Amino acid sequence: MVYGLGIDGGGSKTVCLLIDDRYQVLGRGEAGPSNYQSIGLSAATMAIKNAISQAVSYHQPGICIGSLGLGLAGVGRPEDIEIVRELVRQIQSNEQLQINWNIAPENFFIGGDSLIALVGGLGHDVGIVAMAGTGSQVFGRNHHGKIKRVGGWGYILGDEGGGYDIAVRGLRAVMRSFDGRLPPTRLTQELLNELGLKSPERLIEAVYRRGLGVRDMAALSTIIDRVAAEGDPVAETIITDVAQELVLATQVAIADLFNSGDFCEIVTVGGIWRGWSNLRSEFITGINAIAPQAEIVWPRHEPALGAALLAMKFK
Amino acid sequence: MVYGLGIDGGGSKTVCLLIDDRYQVLGRGEAGPSNYQSIGLSAATMAIKNAISQAVSYHQPGICIGSLGLGLAGVGRPEDIEIVRELVRQIQSNEQLQINWNIAPENFFIGGDSLIALVGGLGHDVGIVAMAGTGSQVFGRNHHGKIKRVGGWGYILGDEGGGYDIAVRGLRAVMRSFDGRLPPTRLTQELLNELGLKSPERLIEAVYRRGLGVRDMAALSTIIDRVAAEGDPVAETIITDVAQELVLATQVAIADLFNSGDFCEIVTVGGIWRGWSNLRSEFITGINAIAPQAEIVWPRHEPALGAALLAMKFK
Repeated sequence: MVYGLGIDGGGSKTVCLLIDDRYQVLGRGEAGPSNYQSIGLSAATMAIKNAISQAVSYHQPGICIGSLGLGLAGVGRPEDIEIVRELVRQIQSNEQLQINWNIAPENFFIGGDSLIALVGGLGHDVGIVAMAGTGSQVFGRNHHGKIKRVGGWGYILGDEGGGYDIAVRGLRAVMRSFDGRLPPTRLTQELLNELGLKSPERLIEAVYRRGLGVRDMAALSTIIDRVAAEGDPVAETIITDVAQELVLATQVAIADLFNSGDFCEIVTVGGIWRGWSNLRSEFITGINAIAPQAEIVWPRHEPALGAALLAMKFK
Repeated sequence: MVYGLGIDGGGSKTVCLLIDDRYQVLGRGEAGPSNYQSIGLSAATMAIKNAISQAVSYHQPGICIGSLGLGLAGVGRPEDIEIVRELVRQIQSNEQLQINWNIAPENFFIGGDSLIALVGGLGHDVGIVAMAGTGSQVFGRNHHGKIKRVGGWGYILGDEGGGYDIAVRGLRAVMRSFDGRLPPTRLTQELLNELGLKSPERLIEAVYRRGLGVRDMAALSTIIDRVAAEGDPVAETIITDVAQELVLATQVAIADLFNSGDFCEIVTVGGIWRGWSNLRSEFITGINAIAPQAEIVWPRHEPALGAALLAMKFK
């Protein structure tokens, strides 16, 4: 029996799935982040190795791996792919992993996180993925293999609708409300409580001097989401605005890849879509208004399965 | 004859004015930045000392200084003022400065940059200052001495209408245009030329990896301003949006400090107001619509004179 590995290496965790040639999941491993551009190559290599080690531990030693797919955030340029290829070579030469590697070059896939999310989310490789986690990106692929990315330019240049964006909008709303530029909002008390602060003025200290990182900020988005679900008008406006941003990005991808009236599936991937607020229903309403033939679905599988499928099936 | 010193210590330079007791400027000195929170205390002390040294060099050695006003960005809390007080003590004990210090405690002023900009800009201490440089803030003071600040929460939480904000809006517009979320804009070519980049995708590298600082980013705002003046609709929308932000902040300050119909002066301080675009005229139109009794003026003097006047006249 020949098996395959699918790996989803993200900024917060790494997931590895062991699958068989009928695409059944036989093992799953999870380890720390593997975004080598931020944590360095050796830490990323270690995380990927640990995730693989866990995934194959359900099985007998000496298992034979015939295909491998690896998706990493920010990997797209040929130089990135070459770096990751070398990283995989190192893992394959690691004797601690009791694996018999037998991968033909054509059974090898290295790419970015968008395509594996698309293929994992839909179970096939045509459609659109609207990702909203810490950042955001819309990515699509049509029947001719043409791809289109929209957004995902990072926390300064883009990522509209991601957790960081939602959090910054929420914190700015607190300051605007404090000044009198916006009416009072429950966001103030809820965000200050979360950060252990006594007044909005203390946010200066917390954000600039204590150095709240991008991921810490993004974590605050769940509070904005919840306060919006509870009916606070200021928070609701933020959610409506970011839903419209995600609709716009998706609309651009649909228009670029599909003919008007073509059926297409849009999969919503990432924690932001799982919130309590109306974000996803507003997104669906917005998409229905501009592309009634599109169908919005929840992910059918996780991105790591997309990575495995890309190595075995959709190369 | 007894003289006074007024010092404006900012994030990019330090200005010192020597004035006499009829408020005539007798000498001027300029040195590097003196924002001690970012460059450290000893560098700030050196800059202020150099600015003073230059300002008094026009005069005979042994000049007698009877009052001193010092305005520094971000200084407002009692602990900040105590730090700056100690800094001034060190400068006064410096024997290289051939100055006879004879300052009574009541002839000493230490404060933030907003009040000195207001007093310098208007020549008196009642009214509103709308500051837009790298950051932005609206600050006002009424006849009862009540003050009101709006905005100025820094580049993450606020500073709407400052150079950094304008630049980020411009760079985001370039990415949105590249994606197809906005129509083509001349901002793309102009901003890429300025940064020596070949395509919008290279902005990722420039902004995140090369680490374009807040001040470097803010410097790009002059390009957005110019492209707007040349009639590019995307750039014009940015300028209109930030003009409305500055109108809103000013409106809140007026409402908090003055009765409806009260005359009040608004002074526009900072490089952003001096651009070629319609930003200032749109600001004036916006203010006229909500507070027809307000008068928008250019600064009458520089903030350093405001610092000197605060020490001598408006304590």
